[in-house]
Amino acid sequence: MTAVEVRALVFDVFGTVVDWRGGVAREVSRLLGPGVDATALADDWRERYAPSMERVRSGDLPWTPLDALHRSSLDDVLASSGLGDVPAEARDELVLAWHRLDPWPDVLPGLGRLRREFVLAPLSNGNVALQVDLARRSGLPWDCVLGAEIVRHYKPDPEVYDSAPQLLAVPPSSVVMVAAHLDDLTAARARGLRTAYVHRPDEFGGRVVPPGSDPEADLSVASFEELAEALGA
Amino acid sequence: MTAVEVRALVFDVFGTVVDWRGGVAREVSRLLGPGVDATALADDWRERYAPSMERVRSGDLPWTPLDALHRSSLDDVLASSGLGDVPAEARDELVLAWHRLDPWPDVLPGLGRLRREFVLAPLSNGNVALQVDLARRSGLPWDCVLGAEIVRHYKPDPEVYDSAPQLLAVPPSSVVMVAAHLDDLTAARARGLRTAYVHRPDEFGGRVVPPGSDPEADLSVASFEELAEALGA
Repeated sequence: MTAVEVRALVFDVFGTVVDWRGGVAREVSRLLGPGVDATALADDWRERYAPSMERVRSGDLPWTPLDALHRSSLDDVLASSGLGDVPAEARDELVLAWHRLDPWPDVLPGLGRLRREFVLAPLSNGNVALQVDLARRSGLPWDCVLGAEIVRHYKPDPEVYDSAPQLLAVPPSSVVMVAAHLDDLTAARARGLRTAYVHRPDEFGGRVVPPGSDPEADLSVASFEELAEALGA
Repeated sequence: MTAVEVRALVFDVFGTVVDWRGGVAREVSRLLGPGVDATALADDWRERYAPSMERVRSGDLPWTPLDALHRSSLDDVLASSGLGDVPAEARDELVLAWHRLDPWPDVLPGLGRLRREFVLAPLSNGNVALQVDLARRSGLPWDCVLGAEIVRHYKPDPEVYDSAPQLLAVPPSSVVMVAAHLDDLTAARARGLRTAYVHRPDEFGGRVVPPGSDPEADLSVASFEELAEALGA
């Protein structure tokens, strides 16, 4: 993959750009107090993420933005954790934990370099308002917000990957999908995008150990700064 | 309109944020040389803008991004101007004139103030890639790109106005549509958005004199700095 062919980079966000586990646990502690195992609750909530989107992907549910799926799965998490008495307002506020996640330390320096050369956009399952909140909170320098809500399909539906070159008006092969998850990259490659794997060993706090590299990807890196270096930015 | 209720501002772009006439004429001169009346060509091209979108709005054409409509109407402009021998590559390059327009002088200072308090996005008939190019060229500090291509409808179709509060996850009454054109603001009000009229006397170089204010709008201002002042930003 030579830098001269790349026009745009699109990013998975939860786990790749931001630390969802640490951020959600912090907000759970803040809102529900020290008596709750905040990390366990974050993990439980995240485990319901893929199944909740699968209900939309399968047609069981009509298009539903991620905030609403998070709200619904939170009810299940709280019920199964003996926390059924958490009031509705606190639940609504907890959903906004996903709007208040911190980027990994290498993200802002790396994106700052990449943005000088390439168009940058999130291509996440998170809804537009969530991406706007994350970006405003941390200064993520996106050129625009792409992703699931724009096309009303969740990854790994092909419509999401196709929308990036289409809306940026460039060939699929000039767009790099950047993600810490092999399945996201596999689906992106199937639609003609280039792929860069980012190793994020702390995403699951050691519960799941991601591979050090993706042999199928055009690039495997350990940080966004290394990605910038590899792309000559 | 009190500042505390406003959450987001969405902007018409051609004429409101950027000077399309001066920018297109500059690019026409650069690409076609001094023998062409560049300003007349810019005006002729712009006159075909609304009718070309009307073909999509009426269903006569399927969804077509603005770049493609511009390319098609340019062919008509050149044919009717005795410039039928302009080669295809120059035509493709001329279409990109619309990606290289300068903002009015008050725009960057005004948006810089507004962005501290409010979410900002273009809500234009220009396609996403065009908005990204304009923003990167001049440093327009958008939080995301909204508009026609996202919903595959051209203004004044209601879907475009509805998409702003929907994608930003805020009530319509907390979104302000900012435009230099009364019809845009009328259509936005019909969907529950608030409206701010910006007086841009130079948009048409004196050929059309816009009104000094819009009595129906929540605000009428002469610059984005005045808009920031009025909203307490």
